[in-house]
Amino acid sequence: MSGKVWLVGAGPGDPELLTLKAAKVLQGAEVVLLDDLVNSQLLEHCPRARVLRVGKRGGCRSTPQDFIHRLMLRYARQGRRVVRLKGGDPCIFGRGGEEAEWLGARGIECELVNGITAGLAAASQCGIPLTLRGISRGVSLVTAHTQDDSVPNWPALAQGGTTLVVYMGVARLADIRDGLLAGGMRANMPVAMIENASLPQQRECRSNLSRMLADATAFHLSSPAVLIIGDVATRAEQALARSA
Amino acid sequence: MSGKVWLVGAGPGDPELLTLKAAKVLQGAEVVLLDDLVNSQLLEHCPRARVLRVGKRGGCRSTPQDFIHRLMLRYARQGRRVVRLKGGDPCIFGRGGEEAEWLGARGIECELVNGITAGLAAASQCGIPLTLRGISRGVSLVTAHTQDDSVPNWPALAQGGTTLVVYMGVARLADIRDGLLAGGMRANMPVAMIENASLPQQRECRSNLSRMLADATAFHLSSPAVLIIGDVATRAEQALARSA
Repeated sequence: MSGKVWLVGAGPGDPELLTLKAAKVLQGAEVVLLDDLVNSQLLEHCPRARVLRVGKRGGCRSTPQDFIHRLMLRYARQGRRVVRLKGGDPCIFGRGGEEAEWLGARGIECELVNGITAGLAAASQCGIPLTLRGISRGVSLVTAHTQDDSVPNWPALAQGGTTLVVYMGVARLADIRDGLLAGGMRANMPVAMIENASLPQQRECRSNLSRMLADATAFHLSSPAVLIIGDVATRAEQALARSA
Repeated sequence: MSGKVWLVGAGPGDPELLTLKAAKVLQGAEVVLLDDLVNSQLLEHCPRARVLRVGKRGGCRSTPQDFIHRLMLRYARQGRRVVRLKGGDPCIFGRGGEEAEWLGARGIECELVNGITAGLAAASQCGIPLTLRGISRGVSLVTAHTQDDSVPNWPALAQGGTTLVVYMGVARLADIRDGLLAGGMRANMPVAMIENASLPQQRECRSNLSRMLADATAFHLSSPAVLIIGDVATRAEQALARSA
């Protein structure tokens, strides 16, 4: 009598950016473990489930990962249908991979359900095409924050020819700027900084690589936010209506 | 009396990976322009809409982009609610940016609705965590195919420290391999090649950088397919159940 765990992407914030599959899985859930950054309006899809809040916001007091693992294991071993609801996509900076491996090693069936990741939602909301013929032939999603304090290879990323979308970068703007300049990126490369992407309180600050730290400070940019760095970051901003 | 155009991501193929917002927009559509690679089961959301098939599959006979632009413009100027339904996400290799700019320049209101892009769905379906602490701190989505025959900076991409997800790469495997080797990537770097991600006919071929061309040939890998290149491509494959 073993249950199952679904690692489900809640999307970027707008509750309508949930997938139909995620909504269906939530409807069948008996236990839901909810991350901090997930919009609690999504709980409308699982009115009868037991909901446990297990936030893990960087730098703040939060539930240890090990405890979350054990909670999922306990309920799955009770035969429950368990949903772990994470902001964005479970495998883009969401630790979905770690959790799936940990559960799999203990014989628990586990399924990943994709979500819209914040960087892609931020771009669409601001009318920024992450890829554009002749301008950008790809996009790199990278995180500036890691527990082990390792640093991304910013100079190589500057040279890859992709639009850069940086998560958890608000506290590292000087390092990001210096690394990209060292890789040969232009000082006036456009940058868009988007706070609370896809939510009603979304704010955006347009800047460029050399000015982004000063502009973010003046703007009082705060987490959660994503940075979009690349020539596409000035495109189409007038052309597109904001999401209704 | 102007209409509006929604550029909507249909997701990777599985009709349940559509967002709630995309389903709602389809329900209100009067005209739907449908791409080739979009699962026609999604038309269940818009039974009363006029549906025009405007495929643009690379290399095959297809509707010219200019004609698609003009169709959208014509219906929008008639006051219609027009949905342009594209595979994956409209701004990841989907020309959503181009179409939004073109329409915006002509005064047509336009809105982007995100979809799950094929590379992320392929990874989740195969149990591959695209980012993983200590292994991969980001992911780069790149296309190997462009109209202008420019080539991605494979050597720089090899050095960026991100998992690589390559779209439209089936016909360019030798170039991709040579470029990544030139950038210093290991010959035995794991590669997963996934055909028809998220559909019942999904197939996957596990290989590595030096062998991927031979393995893809033996496997009869065909488009649409994505390549996932990086140490994460061997992770968790046993641990995860396939999507039901």
